[in-house]
Amino acid sequence: MGRPRKALLDRRRIGRTALELVDETGDFTVPEVARRLGVQTASVYHHVDGRAGVIELLREQVVDELDAGTLDERPWDVALEAWARSYRAAFAAHPRSISMLMTSPVRAPRVIDQYERVAGLLLDAGFAPEAVMPIITGLDNIVLGSALDMSAPEVMWVVGGEAEAPRLAAAQAATGPARADQAFDLTLAGFLDHCRGLLVRDRTAAATDGREAGGPRS
Amino acid sequence: MGRPRKALLDRRRIGRTALELVDETGDFTVPEVARRLGVQTASVYHHVDGRAGVIELLREQVVDELDAGTLDERPWDVALEAWARSYRAAFAAHPRSISMLMTSPVRAPRVIDQYERVAGLLLDAGFAPEAVMPIITGLDNIVLGSALDMSAPEVMWVVGGEAEAPRLAAAQAATGPARADQAFDLTLAGFLDHCRGLLVRDRTAAATDGREAGGPRS
Repeated sequence: MGRPRKALLDRRRIGRTALELVDETGDFTVPEVARRLGVQTASVYHHVDGRAGVIELLREQVVDELDAGTLDERPWDVALEAWARSYRAAFAAHPRSISMLMTSPVRAPRVIDQYERVAGLLLDAGFAPEAVMPIITGLDNIVLGSALDMSAPEVMWVVGGEAEAPRLAAAQAATGPARADQAFDLTLAGFLDHCRGLLVRDRTAAATDGREAGGPRS
Repeated sequence: MGRPRKALLDRRRIGRTALELVDETGDFTVPEVARRLGVQTASVYHHVDGRAGVIELLREQVVDELDAGTLDERPWDVALEAWARSYRAAFAAHPRSISMLMTSPVRAPRVIDQYERVAGLLLDAGFAPEAVMPIITGLDNIVLGSALDMSAPEVMWVVGGEAEAPRLAAAQAATGPARADQAFDLTLAGFLDHCRGLLVRDRTAAATDGREAGGPRS
């Protein structure tokens, strides 16, 4: 808010440049980002808090491609499914960033804001507070594992001859197109079904607690 | 089989060295592998079919840490769950190899052999042939997404102040230890439940087909 407009633009350019480098080479260094922007390395450090800061700007670039409007849908499972599909598409465009982003802590405000909305969605639906982070983490892992898989070859297992692996060869021959999409649909459906089951349990527990505390809440 | 013993030992050393480089730096080149082994780059190419060949030797090194005996367990879902847990532990020890291995086709004979057994397990259980690869792929994605997550910090979302993201902060505060394990358990349980449902459908369809073709098969 108080920052000059130019600084904001520069931060966006830094994130975009780091993302380009990761898309092309699988990694980035701050001096490489500076060189590509035609500035001194020290100028980049003037705008961001070290390499970790650049990673967060890069993260915002990817997450900006996500449709956060999906989180306004209701009920919760429709919203979560639509968000997961948009999330997968955004990361599938930048597969080489996935490993880096999964293993460094999220600090980027625009990304924290999306997770705040997901946490609110699950809490409002009636999930127990302790169930929320395992659900968010599980969904993250499914989405990012599957986004990585979208960069995999359509035939992932190369069987030399039928004699080598006849049953794997038969299963691959019987597989329809878009193996990666089929696998994601299957996994996401199973995950959401399981969460719906957990929600019944959590709502029942909450209702029982309410009665024990002196009758059901209004 | 026909190869001299020394060549086999060398292939194993090449795979182990490439894996060491990936563990340390996130990537490898064939000249780097040669340098570390104290041989000429050409000598490495004498033993393996280019960079892709080295990736397969590296893959075998990781998969050798997996307990393939889990696939002898029965019923199928007990075997699949035990295999998935062993698989996750093996890859969690080499998180920087995951992205590389997920996006290049599997040719390594010892790895193909494990997937042959998984395909056989699912076909023998009664899954329709077209269901097998989506299930295997979905399980792969869950396992590898979750193995990557094991390298993530325990607190993945760093909320600046409660005012910034109060509901995410509340959910994180309510989370028990081992967020990554909780998420994996939840996801795997949901996946296996969903597969059990698919199996009922596939077995029913097979029985119906049998009746239409002239009574149930023995």
